[in-house]
Amino acid sequence: MGYQTAVVGASGYAGGEVVRLLDEHPDFEVAYLGAHSQAGAALSSVHPHLHRGARVLDSNDADAVPNVDVAFLALPHGSSALVGLQLAERGMKVIDLGSDFRMDTPERYEEAYGSPHARPEALQDWAYGLPELFRDEIAGSELVAAPGCYPTASLLALVPLVAGGVIEPTEITINAMSGVSGAGRSLREDLLFGAVDEGVRAYGVTNHRHRPEIEMGIERSAGRAGRVTFTPHLVPMQRGILATVTAPVADGVTRRNLQDVFRTAYGDEPFVEVVDDPPQTRWVVGSNRALIAAFLDERTRTAVVLSAIDNLLKGAAGQAVQAANLMFGLDETAGLPMAGWMP
Amino acid sequence: MGYQTAVVGASGYAGGEVVRLLDEHPDFEVAYLGAHSQAGAALSSVHPHLHRGARVLDSNDADAVPNVDVAFLALPHGSSALVGLQLAERGMKVIDLGSDFRMDTPERYEEAYGSPHARPEALQDWAYGLPELFRDEIAGSELVAAPGCYPTASLLALVPLVAGGVIEPTEITINAMSGVSGAGRSLREDLLFGAVDEGVRAYGVTNHRHRPEIEMGIERSAGRAGRVTFTPHLVPMQRGILATVTAPVADGVTRRNLQDVFRTAYGDEPFVEVVDDPPQTRWVVGSNRALIAAFLDERTRTAVVLSAIDNLLKGAAGQAVQAANLMFGLDETAGLPMAGWMP
Amino acid sequence: MGYQTAVVGASGYAGGEVVRLLDEHPDFEVAYLGAHSQAGAALSSVHPHLHRGARVLDSNDADAVPNVDVAFLALPHGSSALVGLQLAERGMKVIDLGSDFRMDTPERYEEAYGSPHARPEALQDWAYGLPELFRDEIAGSELVAAPGCYPTASLLALVPLVAGGVIEPTEITINAMSGVSGAGRSLREDLLFGAVDEGVRAYGVTNHRHRPEIEMGIERSAGRAGRVTFTPHLVPMQRGILATVTAPVADGVTRRNLQDVFRTAYGDEPFVEVVDDPPQTRWVVGSNRALIAAFLDERTRTAVVLSAIDNLLKGAAGQAVQAANLMFGLDETAGLPMAGWMP
Amino acid sequence: MGYQTAVVGASGYAGGEVVRLLDEHPDFEVAYLGAHSQAGAALSSVHPHLHRGARVLDSNDADAVPNVDVAFLALPHGSSALVGLQLAERGMKVIDLGSDFRMDTPERYEEAYGSPHARPEALQDWAYGLPELFRDEIAGSELVAAPGCYPTASLLALVPLVAGGVIEPTEITINAMSGVSGAGRSLREDLLFGAVDEGVRAYGVTNHRHRPEIEMGIERSAGRAGRVTFTPHLVPMQRGILATVTAPVADGVTRRNLQDVFRTAYGDEPFVEVVDDPPQTRWVVGSNRALIAAFLDERTRTAVVLSAIDNLLKGAAGQAVQAANLMFGLDETAGLPMAGWMP
Repeated sequence: MGYQTAVVGASGYAGGEVVRLLDEHPDFEVAYLGAHSQAGAALSSVHPHLHRGARVLDSNDADAVPNVDVAFLALPHGSSALVGLQLAERGMKVIDLGSDFRMDTPERYEEAYGSPHARPEALQDWAYGLPELFRDEIAGSELVAAPGCYPTASLLALVPLVAGGVIEPTEITINAMSGVSGAGRSLREDLLFGAVDEGVRAYGVTNHRHRPEIEMGIERSAGRAGRVTFTPHLVPMQRGILATVTAPVADGVTRRNLQDVFRTAYGDEPFVEVVDDPPQTRWVVGSNRALIAAFLDERTRTAVVLSAIDNLLKGAAGQAVQAANLMFGLDETAGLPMAGWMP
Repeated sequence: MGYQTAVVGASGYAGGEVVRLLDEHPDFEVAYLGAHSQAGAALSSVHPHLHRGARVLDSNDADAVPNVDVAFLALPHGSSALVGLQLAERGMKVIDLGSDFRMDTPERYEEAYGSPHARPEALQDWAYGLPELFRDEIAGSELVAAPGCYPTASLLALVPLVAGGVIEPTEITINAMSGVSGAGRSLREDLLFGAVDEGVRAYGVTNHRHRPEIEMGIERSAGRAGRVTFTPHLVPMQRGILATVTAPVADGVTRRNLQDVFRTAYGDEPFVEVVDDPPQTRWVVGSNRALIAAFLDERTRTAVVLSAIDNLLKGAAGQAVQAANLMFGLDETAGLPMAGWMP
Repeated sequence: MGYQTAVVGASGYAGGEVVRLLDEHPDFEVAYLGAHSQAGAALSSVHPHLHRGARVLDSNDADAVPNVDVAFLALPHGSSALVGLQLAERGMKVIDLGSDFRMDTPERYEEAYGSPHARPEALQDWAYGLPELFRDEIAGSELVAAPGCYPTASLLALVPLVAGGVIEPTEITINAMSGVSGAGRSLREDLLFGAVDEGVRAYGVTNHRHRPEIEMGIERSAGRAGRVTFTPHLVPMQRGILATVTAPVADGVTRRNLQDVFRTAYGDEPFVEVVDDPPQTRWVVGSNRALIAAFLDERTRTAVVLSAIDNLLKGAAGQAVQAANLMFGLDETAGLPMAGWMP
Repeated sequence: MGYQTAVVGASGYAGGEVVRLLDEHPDFEVAYLGAHSQAGAALSSVHPHLHRGARVLDSNDADAVPNVDVAFLALPHGSSALVGLQLAERGMKVIDLGSDFRMDTPERYEEAYGSPHARPEALQDWAYGLPELFRDEIAGSELVAAPGCYPTASLLALVPLVAGGVIEPTEITINAMSGVSGAGRSLREDLLFGAVDEGVRAYGVTNHRHRPEIEMGIERSAGRAGRVTFTPHLVPMQRGILATVTAPVADGVTRRNLQDVFRTAYGDEPFVEVVDDPPQTRWVVGSNRALIAAFLDERTRTAVVLSAIDNLLKGAAGQAVQAANLMFGLDETAGLPMAGWMP
């Protein structure tokens, strides 16, 4: 018998992936599935690809969630705060895939989300769940906020270089390209097939809410304040994020230096691989891995770092399970796919 | 330590999927990887999504393949015959994902492929590896020919109705729609993104080589000669086959009858599920499952049966591993994914 | 100065295409644009691809439409009846791209749409706007109902064979594959990119409302009652329909006979071309052309006819403009694109 | 009768688009079609979407090209130099869509292409065919080199800001996303549907050959040396380029200033529109228009400029025809589509 888990918000894309991963995990068992408008529906009607008996979605209300070993929350922005704290007060471990507990300070939260946090004093209790940068904090915490998808891809590409003094943390440009699942399973005009297929667009230009999270990550892990120009783009594919990070390098830095910094930082990481050629998102879609490649434009003395992840796995559900593995003292890779899906 | 396996033809799509499945399988281990033009290349360069150490592709020559418990062959049409028989003669179990040993007679082979079989006397030694129809033969055989992707989807939709006398086996129309991976990893003008994306086409009209295999399957499993008008179509997606089968029904047959026939036939099958609504290919892409739905057009007295599979899993690599599980007396579902990938 | 036109329902896909075609047409001018929920919005915000000054959408109410030479209606099912008749009573020519006036009898309408027609006596006043089959009626009519997209592709592939006595009209199977724009610009869960991309599905199995329209077209143009098993499929692309039609042929018929029937029927048609190889939808997307190819399965004595159109052009807006050209005595090809878009 | 034209290299994507545009152009006529390996083939087999009689492709050899008013060359890199100069010597106007004559100096050519130019003294005779920046030169020239697709999108977004002293020309970062047709109609493994669909990748990182062309364009039109970090990406769609340009702004600059600079620069341009929201590539696919939007990240004092074009029209064939219109003193917009294709 494995640890008992609840998945609150199981009807969305990230929630569905958590269920899929836990179903295959040797040490966890899904004991409860919560949903909001889909409460009462069969899991097989909400996620027809998930087959495992005749499970039904229950409610997202904290009161309805039984006492389990760990609850995963995959709720829209603003909806986790209350549920998460209620479950925490009942002594459960909680891993929040949403954005409510990612920030370290109420100010940063307000900068990102435009309104004050409902329970600002609680923010300090939550570890920031990016294992490659905050492994010990996660392992020692009962409450973990899994990072956003763009911050995951961006921070893996940035932090070693900032920490190593190789790039300036205040002149960073990030252009990221995401598959459509990053927007969640929302019924929006701009997410219709007719609006997405065969086109690319930027969005959230200069004001995307993941930008403050990226700057927080730089500051907390590299110890220096970051300033980032962040432009996300929507590309016509289901999954995957490619972050293309550019920043001026310090004098004397070579491409080899850049690569060495990453190889040193990630040499022992099971889920991060440093590659020589530009990584394609499809090489990691379906996997919990991240691929990083570093280049140097000699003429402009600019580092170009490419970082590819599956936004729903390493950028959401996979990372949450990786954090859970750490929190329970399990093998960090347990139940997490290494191989991706091609073609 | 699991059973040792060799994957010959590991550089293609189906071969890559065999490797991925075996890597995750509790009872098998990949001991050898063969390739033709890619011999000598790193697995990570040929299949960048498959991560498991620093493996290198070796040769496809039978002489180079070590003595393993079972060899999987994923070779182009015509290339398996020799290798397969050489490995068989050395006493190994062999599972051929190719088309060389699927037919029961030399005549049928020639009808499908237009030239005589190189070793016609060997055909009778190979079981036809569709477990739902030929489970015992597979379990008792050392040599298995895994069925084609279209025949798998089609036969699962046809055989129970023919066997039950519900439809005539000589007035069957099959229109099938396949993702592009069904054409293999070939460098062809008509498989370029610029030629495939945003379009649909029929091909192999009236003469596709899977048609005789479908008719053979009907005859061998339902005991009646079949005659099929088969039109495959290429649709702009990576994976998945939907077979839409139409055939006049016998007098008095109701939709409920059709559904009952399937529910009876597949009630205990772990990988076949009978559903009420039209199944989408995406519900099974990534999974070894098949979904079947049956309708009756009352006006024309025609059954419309829909059958959805992942052409690379239930239609190729997954089915081959399912057969291997049977051949080794393992749990038939061992190492095979139930859940698909969505989004 | 060209003839003045109004486009009612200009905010949808078909309406947008009517505007685009009329903007480029030498003899028509768009004098009025109507919309429902988008009334008051700039055309450039509703159709950002259409650039021609600073036009604004007005109302879909018949009262708001000025007296023009011809009104094009591109409204949801059920919404054209009233508007269309009001405009007709004011003496305008009207071309309805919707389904309200396509049927020849109230009975057929009810069979297709499940409820009685609001103004059954009006049905006989409307010509069925498929020029290749009903050219004279269209040219002589003030009111034209443009056919549905599936009926257009299907009837072009069927009528010459039925009329020529080459196939039986009561044993016809049509499997059609459509791009997503065929479903219109609706905000529906099942039309999200996440639900459509990388998958194929059948829908409307045994009960799609275009089936009675197809049977009507057979009856009215070939003079024999038709019976059709019709299964439409949604494929992950924006535009295009491929209809794959199968039917048993009469004794002695050869493939050459089939091809000759089509070449004779369409030899002088500017928009229909008979080809030898299976036509791809992309060859006609962007064009008002239809491509037809005929095959004969000798073993099953079944004709397999493939018919490809752009559902928004020959299947909607292009066909409507073609009808308008006839109604005004213009060159039938005026303003209509011959070349498609590739890649 | 219009001006007579030859299209050399008519079998590729850009060549096909030139033919399509000229076929619809009121003042030009296609008198000759050349091809290399496809010489002798029917146009309808090479470009099945182009329908206009039974034309056949002839040779790409200059000797075979008749005396026409203007020749369009759409040849692979390195193949235009000889043909172009031979036709020029015969007194024809020539518009080269290739890269052989785009550079202003032999040094710049070698920097971009890695080898010396075959006829360096000829470079000065060719105008750089970006009408919005070099209209007078084009109008007065017999020989025009149409710009690359990335340079077109990038320069339209950059030059007004550099010329206006609003951004520094030496700290520019360009991240561009292109549809697959930008790579041409080449039979390459990495352009197969199986390799492109559902993934995004960077390529040519730090060394793409369009970078020197962009820097040349800045220098020649804004009069200041440019230095650019350029990273192109391939996204899974047929057409369209989005260039996302970031650069630090001068003190005191506001977003309004940025927008005003563009509105002033392009206020009278028929094919460039300045928009407020992030432009989507699909708004311009099928059109010769470019859409520009400018943003200012106040925190980092960085301009973010988005520029969208159809790479095959404004980025290739459309721009070439626009240049031809200027060279012949025609209306600059003659025969060029304003409306794009949606959905």
